[in-house]
This record gives sequence, structure tokens and C-alpha cells, in this order.
Amino acid sequence: MSKKNVIVGQSGGPTSVINSSLYGVVTEAMKHPDEVGCVYGMVNGIKGFLDGKKVVLSDMSEDELKIMQSTPSSYLGSCRFKLPEDLSDPVFPQLMKELENLNVGYFFYIGGNDSMDTVSKMSRYAASINSPIRFIGVPKTIDNDLICTDHCPGYGSAAKYVAASCREISLDAGVYGSKFVSIVEIMGRHAGWLTAASVLARKFEGDNPVLIYLPETVFSVDSFLADVEEAFKKTNNVMVAVSEGVHDAEGKFICEYATSDIAVDNFGHKSLAGTASYLADLVKQKFGCKVRPIEFSLLQRCAAHLSSLTDVTEAAAAGSEGVKAALEGETGIMIGFKRAEGEEYHIDYVRVDVNEVCNQEKPFPAEWITNGGRDVGEGYIKYALPLIQGASPVQYENGLPVYAYLHD
Amino acid sequence: MSKKNVIVGQSGGPTSVINSSLYGVVTEAMKHPDEVGCVYGMVNGIKGFLDGKKVVLSDMSEDELKIMQSTPSSYLGSCRFKLPEDLSDPVFPQLMKELENLNVGYFFYIGGNDSMDTVSKMSRYAASINSPIRFIGVPKTIDNDLICTDHCPGYGSAAKYVAASCREISLDAGVYGSKFVSIVEIMGRHAGWLTAASVLARKFEGDNPVLIYLPETVFSVDSFLADVEEAFKKTNNVMVAVSEGVHDAEGKFICEYATSDIAVDNFGHKSLAGTASYLADLVKQKFGCKVRPIEFSLLQRCAAHLSSLTDVTEAAAAGSEGVKAALEGETGIMIGFKRAEGEEYHIDYVRVDVNEVCNQEKPFPAEWITNGGRDVGEGYIKYALPLIQGASPVQYENGLPVYAYLHD
Repeated sequence: MSKKNVIVGQSGGPTSVINSSLYGVVTEAMKHPDEVGCVYGMVNGIKGFLDGKKVVLSDMSEDELKIMQSTPSSYLGSCRFKLPEDLSDPVFPQLMKELENLNVGYFFYIGGNDSMDTVSKMSRYAASINSPIRFIGVPKTIDNDLICTDHCPGYGSAAKYVAASCREISLDAGVYGSKFVSIVEIMGRHAGWLTAASVLARKFEGDNPVLIYLPETVFSVDSFLADVEEAFKKTNNVMVAVSEGVHDAEGKFICEYATSDIAVDNFGHKSLAGTASYLADLVKQKFGCKVRPIEFSLLQRCAAHLSSLTDVTEAAAAGSEGVKAALEGETGIMIGFKRAEGEEYHIDYVRVDVNEVCNQEKPFPAEWITNGGRDVGEGYIKYALPLIQGASPVQYENGLPVYAYLHD
Repeated sequence: MSKKNVIVGQSGGPTSVINSSLYGVVTEAMKHPDEVGCVYGMVNGIKGFLDGKKVVLSDMSEDELKIMQSTPSSYLGSCRFKLPEDLSDPVFPQLMKELENLNVGYFFYIGGNDSMDTVSKMSRYAASINSPIRFIGVPKTIDNDLICTDHCPGYGSAAKYVAASCREISLDAGVYGSKFVSIVEIMGRHAGWLTAASVLARKFEGDNPVLIYLPETVFSVDSFLADVEEAFKKTNNVMVAVSEGVHDAEGKFICEYATSDIAVDNFGHKSLAGTASYLADLVKQKFGCKVRPIEFSLLQRCAAHLSSLTDVTEAAAAGSEGVKAALEGETGIMIGFKRAEGEEYHIDYVRVDVNEVCNQEKPFPAEWITNGGRDVGEGYIKYALPLIQGASPVQYENGLPVYAYLHD
């Protein structure tokens, strides 16, 4: 087989470990000099690639790669770009031509469900024209909502951030001993995985967050206020963890109660924010106590200084396994995580049909939602704890994390 | 001299290292068994003490003390309680009687300017009745606005959090390459010290935050929008760091433009929030680009997982030096930090008259505010860098920080 080049891109919302997957792709590819020539990076995903934006990654030193690995956000930049459904659209031959011009044999795309949609379309188009280029998806999302995988790289680190921060905020919120409600708003438009991670902050029975609301159940403002009232019977320090995506029985997001001015992105996703603020106002009106709405905002997906070593390691392995799969002839697949049975935590990397994964969402299991939709149960805790283990490999210089910049 | 007991309390807003000062007081006191009997902790400061709330700290094990040391927030709880100006108020003899009942000889209060006001009044009252009880202040504030000290314990860790988080957010905000304004709101009602720390996030010329606004200068909304427009000429990724306390020429807080519903605490301080949101709306209206208002909220003062070891160490030393001073006969003083001249960073602990410190605020030096009130200069960077050095001593268990709870 003649030597072919590798191209790799990142797409969708960034995470703390998406660059660890990039590290995995680049370092694994460079281990196969007989089959792989150069490793290109698309800048700003396929959108940037269509505009001719690319860089060479295979000339990075091991030190540079190591720093890049622990840098949060997408080192190569990202995009939210949906390829047309119609495979006869001229964008497909255009992309193929660009790839052929670069003598690319292996295409890796690191991202969530929308990115897997890109891998699906490109691989199907390639098959339709008998192109030998292989297209592989490497999973990434803090939302943890991809199907066909036990969990997603990016989730463990975001979960660790959420849990540690909730624990710290709860300590702070309790200092005066007076009635205080902290309402923490956590990402997850339709899936409650990340909000559920707040339960890991609990150190003892009755510890915060005492109320946890996921978007998998219907949220009622009246019930919420009654829940807070009930919680006050046990503690003055009431922390509420709420998903940004909580909604009423009609499917209306609670943050839409406060404003009708909700932005929508290229994939039709509403930009949700303001749920905690809205609920905080209601709590203040009803109970007259101190209330703090806290949005973790971008921090929950970019605080690499608190990433989970397990997550970093698995993210790199996902990239590396993707390269191995491509070299073995696979295309149109995504690397999935299969958890071994038994008490000891172990992940096997598997190859799943990307067409099954894309545009699907894995909801938080109903059986892990407890106390009538106000809490998260033991099953989840057992599932999640292995994912947050191990200290971030981030290096420090002059007191601050050292990160890599594409145009250093 | 007969053996006397120690009592220690914490007051005002918590920090990541206020418990390290508590650790310093307790461990130093326990090193002097000939002079010190038991170490009591006031629960919820003098307010809780007046209600009879106290605990014994001298029976904690070294392991328990170590975990308590790296726990954020006030282990003993806090209060915002202002003693009356009139020293003939009955609360003074009441407090003295409680202290005498416990055979207290040494009283330590860890806090900011309002807490130093308590130390000042108690020591003056004690002098007026010839009481031998000694009253010592141990500084603490993320605001860094105490006078007579180079800096305050709590500041370095908060500064480190602000700088690291700004760096991480900037990486995240830049992924799409499109126009994006992140507006980061940082604590500091009247003093810009903590907002200034955002400048430490900058890795290269032109790096974020590109605009920094402190409350020491007048803020104009029109100028701000012009500044953003100017910033867009150089980068699409514009991060703005803004103090919660920015105000117009008439002294009106910018967050008051958005709402008149501002809560006021016992010391008459307005509860400021919403500046970033208000400015974000203006930016969105004018530029039509993506905007993210981000409030660091409580996290900037309680994220002990990112505390500065220098800060933790100095906070403990401040507590320890306070005990030494008391045992040497001092009263009515606060432990201050004096930075040695020369290139190498070194702190000498000094004893300053608490009456000079209380109810004063040290503004951010005008000469360090640059670019017409939009930036912070090299002088500050040189001042601040030593304060954020060294990794947090927080221990981890099951992937999360281990913290101490008073009623474990």
C-alpha cells in the first residue's frame, strides 16, 4: 500500500480533553511511518478546510504535543457546519478533491453527534464513488449523550468540575448559617448527564446539592418552590442543581419564561441561559432570603486544570484507536467505549457504525432519576465515579497552567 | 503568668485560605502549652459567640487540621456583624464576661476591614477597663484592599483563579474564529485588585483579556462600546474583564442601570451583580455578535483546588505570627505583610495598629492603570506574580477535593 496522509479536525463545542484525542490521533499516526506520511489538521473543522485552512501537525515536537494535549478547547479551532443531506450536493466532490489533492487516505473527525453526521455523510459519499479514503469519528462531548458508547471523552472532566465546584460553593454558601439558596445552572440541553454529576459533590446524607433537576423530567415552577420550602425544614443552606434544559409539560424551556429572545445556532439548537436567574428571582420573591444564581457557563467545559486523568487518557486512546481502525481498513465508524462487566473499571475500545450514532441522543436513564425527579440515585454514582479519577496533567509555569496556542 | 485560653473567630466573606490562617492560629497556640490551655473557635464569629456558639479546636488531630487548612470557606462559619461605635453599649461588657468565663487571654479575629473594626473596638474597650485580654487581627480578603500590608491572604488564590479561568475561557471563546465577546465580571466593590489579576492570563501581546476595567476609574458605556469596536480591529475573540463595581462619573454602579433592586447588607454594602449581563446586552445590540456574560460569582473566592501555595503558606504564617505577637504582649494590632526590597520575593510579618487599618480601603494604584483606564500595566504584573505561585495543597479522594466540615 502506498503511503497516505492523515487529516484530522475538531468540531462542535470544545471540551477539556478534545485535544487529548487530537494528541492520540497525531502520535498514533506518527508511529506508522510506512503507511502514514504527513498529519494535517483542518483549522475550524471542515468549514475552515473548505476555505483552505489547514496546518501540518506531524512536525510538532513531543513536548509541544504534550502541552497541546492538556490544553482545553479545540487546538485546531472548531465549527458548527452541517453538510447537506443530499449527497449529490457539489460540496461533497469539492471536499473529496481537496482531500485527494493532499493525498489524504485517512480522515478523522473529533466531535459529538453533529460531527458524527459529517463522518456518516462523508463515508457514504466516499462509498458511492468508490473512494478509498477512510472516515473515522472520534467521540467528544461534555453532554455524554452519544449512543453506542458507555460514555464520551470530555464528560468525565466536566463532571469533575461540576462536582468539585458544587462542593466548594456549598461550603461558601453555608458560612453565615442563615437561609441561603444557591442555584447552579449546568449545561445539557436535552440530556441531564452533566447536571447529574452535581450529586458527586455530596459528602454526607443531606449534603448539597439537596435538589437536582434534569431535563429528562417535566419541571414545574410550583413544585420547585414547594421543594425548596421542604428543603428549608432540614437545612438553611439549600443548593439546587438545575439543567439549563429544564422545561415544562409543554416542552417550553424554563429560561424562555424569562425572555423570548433565545438565539438559535446552525443546527437549530436554542442557546439556553438564564434558568438559574429566573428561578432565583422566584425564590427571592417567595422566601425573601439570599439567593445566588450561578451559571458554570463556559468554565464547565474548559477548566482543564481540573480535568480527570482517566478522561484525558481515554480521550487519547480514542484518537489512537481511531487511527488503528483506519489503518486496518475501517471506515464509517466511531470509536465507542465498552465498559467491562464486574467491579473493576475497565474500558474496551470498540468500533461502532457511525450511521447509528449520528443525530441520536442518549437520555439519562430513568431508573437513576430518584425522589420524584428531584434527585439522582446510587446507580449513577457507581457509573460516574470511575470517570472523574486522577489529577489533571496540566503543567504550570509562573503559577498558571501552560497551554498551547495554534499561532504561538 | 497563668495559663490562658485562646479564642479565634472568622468574619466577613470567606476565602480559599482563611482556614489556613485558622490552622496557623491553632497550631501555633498548641506549641505553647505553658501559656495556652485550650483553643476555642467562635462559631459564626462574634455574633455566634454572643449566642453561645463555640467549639474546641485544640483536640483536633494533625490530619484533621491539615484537611481543615486546605478547605475553602470559613470552617467556623462567619458573620457580618458590626459592633456599636459607642463603647458604653452593653454588648461590650457582655462579650468580656463571656471571654472571662472561658478564661480567654488571647482573642484572634480573621477577617477584612470590617473585622478589624471589631478588633479595634474590643481592644479599645479592654484597655478602657484594664482587661488583660489581648486582641489580634489576622488579615483576610480576596479584595486585597487592606492598608498597612503589601497584600492580604486570600488575594493570591483568588487572583490565580481569575487568571487561570480567564485563560481557559479565552481559549474556549476563540474556537469558532467568529466575532465573540466574553465579558467576565469579577468581585471588588471599590477596589480593582482582583479584576486586575485577569491581566496575568495574557500569554502574548494582544492576548485576552484585551480590555480591563477597574472601579478606580470612571466607566462610560459609550466609551466601552467604542473600545470593543476598536478591539475588533485586532481580534474576533474579545474578552473584557470588568469589576462588579464599575460606575459612572456620578458614582452610579453600572449594574444599577439594569435594575434598581439592589440588596444592601448590614455594613451598608450594596450587593452588586449583573454588570456583565447588562454590558453583554449592549454589545449584542450594537454588534449583533455572540456575547457571553460570565460571573465568577462565589467560585473566585472558594475554588481552593486552585489556591496558591504561597497564599496558603502566608495565610498560615499570619495566624501563627498573630499568636506569637499576643504571647509577647501585643494587643490592638493586625499582622501585616512587608515585602522586602530587591528582586527576590520575601515577606516579613509586621505588627500594625489595627485602628489604622479598620474601615480604610487601599485603592489600586493609579500608576498601574494604563491605556486610559482600559488596561493594567507591568508594575502590577511584577507585584502580583509572586502571590500566585505554587500548587494548591488540596488532597483528593475518589477524584474530588477532600474538605473538612465542622459538624462531620
